[in-house]
Order: sequence, then C-alpha cells, then structure tokens
Amino acid sequence: MAEQKRPRIVIIGAGFGGVKTAQLLADLPVDITIIDRHNFHLFQPLLYQVSTAVLDTDEIAYPIRCFFRKNKNVELFMAKAEGVDRERKVVLTNHGEVPYDYLVLAAGATTNYFGMKSVEEHSYGMKTLQEALHIRNHVLHMFERANKHEDDEEVRRRMLTFVVVGGGPTGVEEAGALTELIDIEKKEFHHLDFNEVKVILLEGMGQVLPMMPPKLREETVRVLRGKGVDVRLRSQVQDYDGKVLTYKNGETGETVEIPSETVIWAAGVKAVPFIANCGGEVDRGGRIIVDEECRVGSDNCVYAIGDCANYTHGTERPLPTIAPVAMQQAAVVAENIKKVMNGQTSLEKLHYKDLGSMATIGRSKAVMAWKGMEFSGFFAWASWMFVHLIRLAGTYSNFTVTVKWIWNFLFGTRLGRIITNIKD
Amino acid sequence: MAEQKRPRIVIIGAGFGGVKTAQLLADLPVDITIIDRHNFHLFQPLLYQVSTAVLDTDEIAYPIRCFFRKNKNVELFMAKAEGVDRERKVVLTNHGEVPYDYLVLAAGATTNYFGMKSVEEHSYGMKTLQEALHIRNHVLHMFERANKHEDDEEVRRRMLTFVVVGGGPTGVEEAGALTELIDIEKKEFHHLDFNEVKVILLEGMGQVLPMMPPKLREETVRVLRGKGVDVRLRSQVQDYDGKVLTYKNGETGETVEIPSETVIWAAGVKAVPFIANCGGEVDRGGRIIVDEECRVGSDNCVYAIGDCANYTHGTERPLPTIAPVAMQQAAVVAENIKKVMNGQTSLEKLHYKDLGSMATIGRSKAVMAWKGMEFSGFFAWASWMFVHLIRLAGTYSNFTVTVKWIWNFLFGTRLGRIITNIKD
Repeated sequence: MAEQKRPRIVIIGAGFGGVKTAQLLADLPVDITIIDRHNFHLFQPLLYQVSTAVLDTDEIAYPIRCFFRKNKNVELFMAKAEGVDRERKVVLTNHGEVPYDYLVLAAGATTNYFGMKSVEEHSYGMKTLQEALHIRNHVLHMFERANKHEDDEEVRRRMLTFVVVGGGPTGVEEAGALTELIDIEKKEFHHLDFNEVKVILLEGMGQVLPMMPPKLREETVRVLRGKGVDVRLRSQVQDYDGKVLTYKNGETGETVEIPSETVIWAAGVKAVPFIANCGGEVDRGGRIIVDEECRVGSDNCVYAIGDCANYTHGTERPLPTIAPVAMQQAAVVAENIKKVMNGQTSLEKLHYKDLGSMATIGRSKAVMAWKGMEFSGFFAWASWMFVHLIRLAGTYSNFTVTVKWIWNFLFGTRLGRIITNIKD
Repeated sequence: MAEQKRPRIVIIGAGFGGVKTAQLLADLPVDITIIDRHNFHLFQPLLYQVSTAVLDTDEIAYPIRCFFRKNKNVELFMAKAEGVDRERKVVLTNHGEVPYDYLVLAAGATTNYFGMKSVEEHSYGMKTLQEALHIRNHVLHMFERANKHEDDEEVRRRMLTFVVVGGGPTGVEEAGALTELIDIEKKEFHHLDFNEVKVILLEGMGQVLPMMPPKLREETVRVLRGKGVDVRLRSQVQDYDGKVLTYKNGETGETVEIPSETVIWAAGVKAVPFIANCGGEVDRGGRIIVDEECRVGSDNCVYAIGDCANYTHGTERPLPTIAPVAMQQAAVVAENIKKVMNGQTSLEKLHYKDLGSMATIGRSKAVMAWKGMEFSGFFAWASWMFVHLIRLAGTYSNFTVTVKWIWNFLFGTRLGRIITNIKD
C-alpha cells in the first residue's frame, strides 16, 4: 500500500452479510464506510413477529453504530445507494458520492411483485420494519373497524379476511402468527363474531416450503390447517384492487375472488433495483452474478454477497437468500480483501456449508431439516427459538425477547397491539 | 332502573381518569363504551423517554381492551369525538353517533401554541405517542445528517442545536434526557465535533417548574446547566420558520435568533378542542367548567374530569393537569353515577388530596416536593422511578422498564435509537 493513505472499504447494506464483513475487517488499518438507508440492522427473520404484535421494533432492530462503538475507523453513511461508477471508483447515493478502494455489495433484496402493479399498490410487503408496522397497524385497525360495522356483514367479512400470499417461510410464519393474534383478539372483542374471521394462505405451487423435504411440507400444511388457516395451493394471484383479490385455481382453471382488505405479499423477492447500476451482469431476479471468489466480474476490488448476489457454482440453482449464505460469503470476502491488500493473488473460494432450514408455524410447532434429519413439533420449535435468540443482535434483546416469548406463552397476550398511525 | 334496559355509560378518553372510571363501574349491571381515537392507554409521564430513545412504544402504551378482558360489558369505540348533543343524549364522532345515559368527559389535553401558527407548523408537540416518535426519528436523523455535512459548519450547527420550549416538568425532563442521549451519540459518532451540539431550554417566566418550592426550582436550573443545558429564562418565543427561532429577551427587550432545525414545544396545554362542543361553559384554556360534584352544568348525567375539566373550588386556580387529579375525580364520578342510578340525590364532592409533585432531570437527579418536604438528588430520583413504575399499566411493562432502566444505567446505551420513518 502506498504511503499513509489507508484503503477505504465501502460496504453497501448493514444486513447479516454487511455487518459481518465490517466486523471482520474493522481491526485492520483501513477505513470502512457502511452505506445504508436505515440507521439500524434489521433481524429480518423475526419481522413477522413485529407485524403480528409479538415483538416491538427495538427488539429486532439494532443501531448499526452500536456494533462499532470501539472501531473509530468504521463509519455509517446513511443514504440510499443509487449505483456504482466503476471507472471512477465511487458509489452514487442520494447524498452524494462515496469513493472506495474496495467495495462490497451487500444490499439485500426487496419484494418482487412480478410486474403486477395493482398488487404492488394495494398489498402489504414484508421486507422492512416500516412494512411490518404497517401490517400491524392495519390488521389491528381492521378489527376495530369491523367492530363498528354491526349492521353490514359484507363489509365486516371483507375486513376480517386476511390473505397471505406465498408459501415460503415468511408466508407460513405470518399465516400461523396471524391465527394466534386472532385467538387473543377473540378474548377482547366481546361482541364480534369470530366465525367471520378468516386467514387464507395462497401458494402458486403445489406445495409450501420448497426447501424442505416432502414430509415436512405436508406436515406444515396439516398444522396450518389445524390452526384454522385456509391453505390453498396451486393458486396464482392475478389482481388485487384493495377490496377484492383474484386468483386462478391451477387445477380447475377457474378464477376465484376473495373479498379482503388485507393482502400480505410474501410471494417473492428480487435484489434491490440499484444493483443493476453497479456495472455487473444481473440475473432475472436482479441479482448480480459473482464468481467463486464472490467477486463481480473478476474485479479484485468489487464483491457481492447475500440476497443481492447470484452465486451459482457447483449447485443447480443460485444459493438461497438466507442469512447463513450471506455470512459465509462475508467471511470469504473479508479474507479476499485482506489478501488483495497484501498483494496475494490466490483468493479464497466459498465452500458453502448448508446449515439446514427451519420454519415456525406457531406456538409449539415448527419444522426443521438438518443434515438429512427431519424434525417437527415442539423440539423443532424450541430449536428455532434458540437459534433465533442467539443470532439476534444485542445481549439486551436476547434477554427481553426470551422474557417476552415466555410471557406470551404463559399468559396468551400480545402487548404490541398498538395502532400508531392514527391521524389526530 | 326501568325494565331490562341497562344504563349506558359513555366515557370519552382512555387516559388515567377514563380508564379508572370504567374500572370502578365495570362490575355494575351497566354497559360501558369507551370512546378513544387510539386503541391504547398512554402513560404520558414517560413520553419524553420514548422521544429520547430510552423506552419503546409498547412499554408506555397499553391496549385499552386489555384492561377489560374480563368485563364483557365494557367496549371500546375507536373514533374521534366531535361533540355532544345534550338534547338527544348522543356523542357525535367521526364514525357516527353513540347514545349515552351517563357521560364522562375525560378527553384530556393537547398542545397549546397560543395562536402562533408558524410555531405550530414547524415545531414538535409532546402530547401523543406519534409526536414522541417523530421527535425521536427527527433528533436521531439530525445527527446522521450533520455527520454528512462535513464542509458546512452553519448547516451542521443548525442541525445540532436542539431547542426545548417550556420550563414545566415535560420541558425539563426532555432537555435533561436529550443531553444524556447526546452523551451516548458521542460514543458512536467518531468524527462529529460535539462542541457543536447544543441543548437550549427556553422559558417565558423567570423560573422553571412553577409548582415546586423556590429552592427546588433553583436546584433544577443548576442541575440542568451542570448537564450542559443552556437554560434561558424570561425568553418568550415569537416565531419559528423551521430554520430560525426568534424569541424576546424579557429583561433586555432584545430579539434573539437561534438557528435550529429542532424545536420541541412543551410550553402549554389546552383541552382538546371538541370539549367546546359539549354544551358546557369553557375557560380560556378550553377546559369545561365543573361543579364540586364534577358535573357539567349541574347535570346529573354529564361529568368531566382530568385535563379537560376546570375544577376550581376552594382553590385560587383550577386543579393542575396531572394524573392524580384525574384519578381522584374518577373515583368521585363513579360514586356519583352509582348514586344517581340508585335514585340518591346527595352526591359526593371532590376532596382533592395533593400527592406532591416530582420531576426528573436526568440520571440520578430529580426534585420532589411532598407534604411540605423537599427532596432532590438520588433519593428523589429513586422515588420518581418507583412511583412511575408502579403506575405503569401492565405487569410486563413494570418488569421490562425496570430492566431497561437498570441496563441503560449500567451500560450507558439507548437501544431505541431506531429511525423508523425513512422512505424507501
């Protein structure tokens, strides 16, 4: 390295991959700038618990600067990245340019509506903290509003029908958690007929949780139905105007309508759009193609990891958009940046280690596939809780989330049922 | 009471007074409807802790329906009250009319800008949960934004000057808590010059905390100044355009300007405006005049309590707008409604018991006046914490707020520093 000038590493995105990369490089003589739209790291796997009033925002959001209190060489630049000028080595943001020597794209994913504008406009996404709060506020408000429409069953039923689209972990967890929220509302809305309340889960394919073994998929549907979720497979959403959702039944070819004021869209993700402006090749999902060393276009100075990267080496499909992938890639990228800075030419490749997958369906119920073994029921649920608790950022949240889960389990309440968006 | 028809008691407002009234009447053969714009009871005394990222929303907001799980005769009607038609005995709301046999006005107070439109438009109020969240988001954002303006000291200083207007408990507590938030930001903004950060407290009178004995007022100013708050007494705000605040120095008559992007207005309250449409006489602060039995216009069926009522009997000024007044009035009103229902003609009068007053100025510092005694420092602070903890609704919050306070005390952090209103 020439002179005193310390290399400047810019990391776009403070998700699992971005934070991990910064942590692994923070002790080196480098200056690190993290660019993020938000000032917090979000624990996305528990977003559905905010949307269903189990947890509060603080518990799954952790101030980014808190991670780097002791690292004076790590800065947050709170801005929206808009692209990368590879020639001039600068990141373009809505607050000006940020120069880099090394760049790590860890910007994550956003909701994919597959071009359906009507659905995008009227349904609720499930990717940001704000969206989770919108869902919470809206769902709670639907009960309050339905409660005031004593004389109009049609309006009431439309308000009390909650549709979740997408049979991946997010959709399954959201649908399960909604039924439990409803069980609690039942105790407090003394004059509402809860036979009018419905949770419907729509999935385009013939199965839920595609990453799970077939037996666990069936178990999941069975448990969801047992909890009162109306699971409809092979159901492809076509349109939603805010009042009526239309889908096509893949078996009969029929078009079916569901009157509902609440559609939660968990049916797909794509890389955040600015990734297309970073000078690399992107796939259909907008993810930037990386080589085995996690580099973009074999550039030793530009890397991409996590949900915004397409890593397809030795696998048929790109690695899944889950935290363990991002974190393993972060380790490889940190190592490679160190090597390049030290003038080494042989870089590390990712050797992806599958840590299995899990999804929770509700109180005491989860499914888990790990090293060829399959688990469901209470043990899987306890494991799910443990894994999520230890990964949650901040000792304080580890503690309060534990207490809150135990409290909710014992007393069957959800103290987060606060509607915060009412205009004065 | 005639036939099976149960008397319908309507309570407007689920603050301290409203909830207490409902609780005291819930076991009678009556139907109670609580009308509130929100679905939660707000613990207003700790609002300043949400605005300074100490506590999260759930911890000071408690779902109203939670109080009445076991009382099937108590309903929440979530709506904005707009007036009362005393002839027809109905409350007018934005969701239609609600008929009553007995009515309790417990609708509380809102911010009083004393007709200054420019201040109302650009400053932050401190009366609702949403306002506290706006302050939190805005203050945190100011640090992030100033941090990006490396080359413009004027802009940076304007962003880092926080003005609190009003030397009552809210203003004092907010100013003290802001300095502590700044101490924590100092640890994490490694490249910001904290000499540029200022907290200014403006008070129109020559003193703060008017309800306190003179010695404690002086002590409060001394402690605030020791914490770095620039306390300016006899300073009357005249205008604020969002960038520059103008006030008149009451001693010199000079007009002083403070460039600031943050003005928090805690300088006055008035009754919520609809109180003027309830068919009773109101005072200058919009509060409805009540007799010794807390009735409006000696009507045995209409009562008013708390911040929206003017109770001046045996005192020179109306009773203060604090929780103990509302709760003592609630007990009187509940008793009187019972008596009227039973056909008794001699009603209860309020015998107000002054429980003293207290205000916290920051970590380990508070002032307290109680039964002619004066306390300041750690003992007053510990008492303040204890009193607020036991009054907080819900055992769960009692517990987590205790834990959070201890945690913050020990580790000097504020985990609520989450900016939640960034547009995608």
